[in-house]
Amino acid sequence: MSDTYYFSPERLRQAITELCLASGSPQEEADLLTGRLIKADLVGHPSHGIIRIPMYLGMIRIDLIKPGAVPSLSIDHGSIVVVDGNGAYGQVGAEHAMKVAIERGRAHGVAAVGVTNLGHIGRLADYAVSASQANCIGMVYTTCGGAASLVAPFEGCSRRMATNPMAMAIPSDREYPIVFDMATSVFAEGKLRVMMAADKKAPDEALLDKEGNPTNNPRDFYAGGTLLPLGGKQGYKGYLLNFMVEVLGGLLINGGYIGREENAKFSNSTLMIVIDVEKFRKMSQFKTELEDLLKYLKETPVAEGKEVLYPGEVEARKEAETLKSGIPLAEKTVEKIQEEMDRYNVPIKLADLGETAPLG
Amino acid sequence: MSDTYYFSPERLRQAITELCLASGSPQEEADLLTGRLIKADLVGHPSHGIIRIPMYLGMIRIDLIKPGAVPSLSIDHGSIVVVDGNGAYGQVGAEHAMKVAIERGRAHGVAAVGVTNLGHIGRLADYAVSASQANCIGMVYTTCGGAASLVAPFEGCSRRMATNPMAMAIPSDREYPIVFDMATSVFAEGKLRVMMAADKKAPDEALLDKEGNPTNNPRDFYAGGTLLPLGGKQGYKGYLLNFMVEVLGGLLINGGYIGREENAKFSNSTLMIVIDVEKFRKMSQFKTELEDLLKYLKETPVAEGKEVLYPGEVEARKEAETLKSGIPLAEKTVEKIQEEMDRYNVPIKLADLGETAPLG
Repeated sequence: MSDTYYFSPERLRQAITELCLASGSPQEEADLLTGRLIKADLVGHPSHGIIRIPMYLGMIRIDLIKPGAVPSLSIDHGSIVVVDGNGAYGQVGAEHAMKVAIERGRAHGVAAVGVTNLGHIGRLADYAVSASQANCIGMVYTTCGGAASLVAPFEGCSRRMATNPMAMAIPSDREYPIVFDMATSVFAEGKLRVMMAADKKAPDEALLDKEGNPTNNPRDFYAGGTLLPLGGKQGYKGYLLNFMVEVLGGLLINGGYIGREENAKFSNSTLMIVIDVEKFRKMSQFKTELEDLLKYLKETPVAEGKEVLYPGEVEARKEAETLKSGIPLAEKTVEKIQEEMDRYNVPIKLADLGETAPLG
Repeated sequence: MSDTYYFSPERLRQAITELCLASGSPQEEADLLTGRLIKADLVGHPSHGIIRIPMYLGMIRIDLIKPGAVPSLSIDHGSIVVVDGNGAYGQVGAEHAMKVAIERGRAHGVAAVGVTNLGHIGRLADYAVSASQANCIGMVYTTCGGAASLVAPFEGCSRRMATNPMAMAIPSDREYPIVFDMATSVFAEGKLRVMMAADKKAPDEALLDKEGNPTNNPRDFYAGGTLLPLGGKQGYKGYLLNFMVEVLGGLLINGGYIGREENAKFSNSTLMIVIDVEKFRKMSQFKTELEDLLKYLKETPVAEGKEVLYPGEVEARKEAETLKSGIPLAEKTVEKIQEEMDRYNVPIKLADLGETAPLG
């Protein structure tokens, strides 16, 4: 496609960092935010990547995100903490919460830390991985603070739940982290946008149209349809997992929940549970056995052309690929980011930094 | 069917308690065990009910379960504990672990308690509900200690994982608990036995035969086939959830894991996480908002004949029904339990206690 630009990750990082600084973020925040968005593009989740920048900056302009805001602790009982994001970027609030969770998890063995009143936190995997790098198991449960109703409860036919993702990372000595990050709906809403852009059908048992009939057309979702919970005929399980996330990430920590308000303010209210593995076992034993388990799963017999992957392997492979090809951004995305560059007087012509064919 | 007996729960309870006492259990253990099995039959999960008794007694005879064994703490760091079941009945070991988890959860705000070296623990929901009755959120993750390989990893075509269930209960003032308890495979293996007994087909995307081809015939599973992880086309999510349970319930707490040993000893190695809601919020506020959330989900528009249920509602309805009809046991099950009654010289004729038609 001629309307895609490929960017060296480093060049893109510098340009987006400039934009964040110009729109009011201090250096550390600009670095964190840009790093996380670039990472999402690298590992093959562009729905959580640089494409989000214009949306974030729009949220600043309507005061839904406050650049430079500093999170504070609103509840602190040692291993139980709630962080008030004070309206910060989601990445800032959640990063702060995970730092506290790791510190408290290591001190007490296990900690449960919530964070409320913050923007969109991006990929949950990043926070879980911070815990695993500190020799802890990290689990993350994220809601939308009562907003972003997109998913029907099992047997229902209209939107009453968010996509409510959860993530987990496990310490290992692998080059790439053992991690997963999944919506409890059949898939995240971003995947529908990708299908629609590529004129592809959605799989069966993923969508209902606005009349509540099954459909494979992603456009029916945007015309008032609904996503279904994970599981197809066993969709009651996806519904229950979604409910679990709503309770942990929202209700428990007073971060809002679906149904409370007609026009709830979007906030990625999140609970993080961190467990210090070394309180249970020697880390070396744990890691040796983890490798043994992964190897056993990996060696499962498969049909021709199939392969069993370890958690996080899809993203690890994609990252190696994108580091070579460069990060692809659609022309339309480049234009939208350019508008923001111009708005904040950043003297960069983004298109000039990219190539119209994959790099390397 | 003429080959089904219906039992008053109370009569059945007394008879099975006698059998447990005769086979070596102290009174408290006999009461606990019988109560849990009867409860499973009442709520509509007979695969975890009284039908298990002959299997449990068989395990005693080959020294896999030790009646009267007393669990002890093998690791104790306050909010992190590992309970050694010392070969006890699973119900005894897991009940002990949940008591510790509630006590420590309430003391510290959050606790993670593992239990290893124990028998089959029955329905996970029961333990989670104990936590919710103590105003805590209870989460339970259970493995098979490296045994009971029944499920293929996503894209694999042979058994390399157990069904690895998880459960969660949430405190409320409802008459019935808000709880779920689910296998991370499409369904538990017991459901296949039920389908086979009723000559029913399995749903699509649930089973592979021993050559790795999709099948709807439950018999193909028992001829060397495999169960698939939850999720169908999105089965990578079920695989990842299953992996999560294997790590939490097995690997983390040194309770064994799939692949370590060819002939691993069955043990329902389990992790329980208990969170004290009142460390986060006033219980009254939490419960009010929970009711609001449940009501909102319940009122989702549905197609003709459908209904959105709250977590635990299926079981609550079934229990009300079974309390009236009596607990149904197949003649074959009654005969097998009678053999055990005779073996341990319990002077009860089980069939005489039942009716050949539903009670009331």
